[in-house]
Amino acid sequence: MSRDSYDEQLDRLTGVLAVMSRDASAAIRRASTALLEVDRGAAETVLAEDAVLDARRAEVEAMIPEVLVRHQPVASDLRLVVCALRIAGALERMGDLAVHVAKVALRRHPVGVVPEPAMPVMTALAEAAARVADKSAVVLATRDRLDAMQLGLDDDEVDAAQERLLSLLVSGWPYGVESAIDLALLGRYYERYADHAVNVSRQVVYLVTGTIRL
Amino acid sequence: MSRDSYDEQLDRLTGVLAVMSRDASAAIRRASTALLEVDRGAAETVLAEDAVLDARRAEVEAMIPEVLVRHQPVASDLRLVVCALRIAGALERMGDLAVHVAKVALRRHPVGVVPEPAMPVMTALAEAAARVADKSAVVLATRDRLDAMQLGLDDDEVDAAQERLLSLLVSGWPYGVESAIDLALLGRYYERYADHAVNVSRQVVYLVTGTIRL
Repeated sequence: MSRDSYDEQLDRLTGVLAVMSRDASAAIRRASTALLEVDRGAAETVLAEDAVLDARRAEVEAMIPEVLVRHQPVASDLRLVVCALRIAGALERMGDLAVHVAKVALRRHPVGVVPEPAMPVMTALAEAAARVADKSAVVLATRDRLDAMQLGLDDDEVDAAQERLLSLLVSGWPYGVESAIDLALLGRYYERYADHAVNVSRQVVYLVTGTIRL
Repeated sequence: MSRDSYDEQLDRLTGVLAVMSRDASAAIRRASTALLEVDRGAAETVLAEDAVLDARRAEVEAMIPEVLVRHQPVASDLRLVVCALRIAGALERMGDLAVHVAKVALRRHPVGVVPEPAMPVMTALAEAAARVADKSAVVLATRDRLDAMQLGLDDDEVDAAQERLLSLLVSGWPYGVESAIDLALLGRYYERYADHAVNVSRQVVYLVTGTIRL
């Protein structure tokens, strides 16, 4: 087995991860459209397409044995295995969280779930989360450590927006407890989504440098 | 390299997973004590001990290359790798969720965060989640498929308790929005915790049977 064909296998593996990464970004953007523009079609697309991310994760997991069996792996190859599995897991989970957002968006359709006063902060949260996902897709492609570090700052914006959302909800929210709970859970979904995106880039850096800290 | 020493390595690997599993169960029980009995010491123990689960996950990940490099792995061995990494990841995450519960428990200390009317359902939720975790530890030890199936039923109890909690919160909750958000997020943490425990047992069944459905 030539090194070339090993590299081909790795290219295929990272290729699937790159596609998953784009799908996970598309999912949160669509889910946010569903949520903020009360768009049922967008929500239903998120729900329908999630199976693709699930299948791709399974595909990655199925590729690993092939890579390992056909080659005498060295330590850095094995690091790739651990990283690829973690990345695939994180990207699948990001899809699940986009599904959660889409489901909340449909909950009172055709009435929206985000009252006007929460629109700015929810929009900021959605945009910050999508930005983190997009950048983690870039990191996956470039394996650039500085890109990965930048991503931590974007994640701080997600956390800050989530904090602002919670502050808004606990300062005399006039839309009732059910609405507050929906929005708090949405905040949590976006936060977790972004955390997973950060984790993807952490794994990439680990893969490249052998150390996990950004 | 004899087969025996390979088995020894696998025993060590599954041994670490078993210890992680017990730690993850202990963590949610302590976090629930912190929450329901307003016990600061219990909460602080959960926070302090979480690093042990993190370290053990890293230990599992570090063992994998060793197992693979020293042996010519066959397909079933490689399945073990994927499963072990998923299980370690799920158990670490269960510890994180116990930390989230413990942090909420401390939020208004020495005042508790669970008002009296929510005590029964929160207690049910905490107990059901701990039960799922305990049973998933058993599945990890016995690799028994029937035990694993039973676990799905216990998880249904977690989901049902979470639903009851949300119903309570949206039917004229008199303790304010902040309290409702705290409890809704707690419900989410317990639900996720139990989901991860179910995932652990799914991985075990997959490992034994080669199919993922319970």
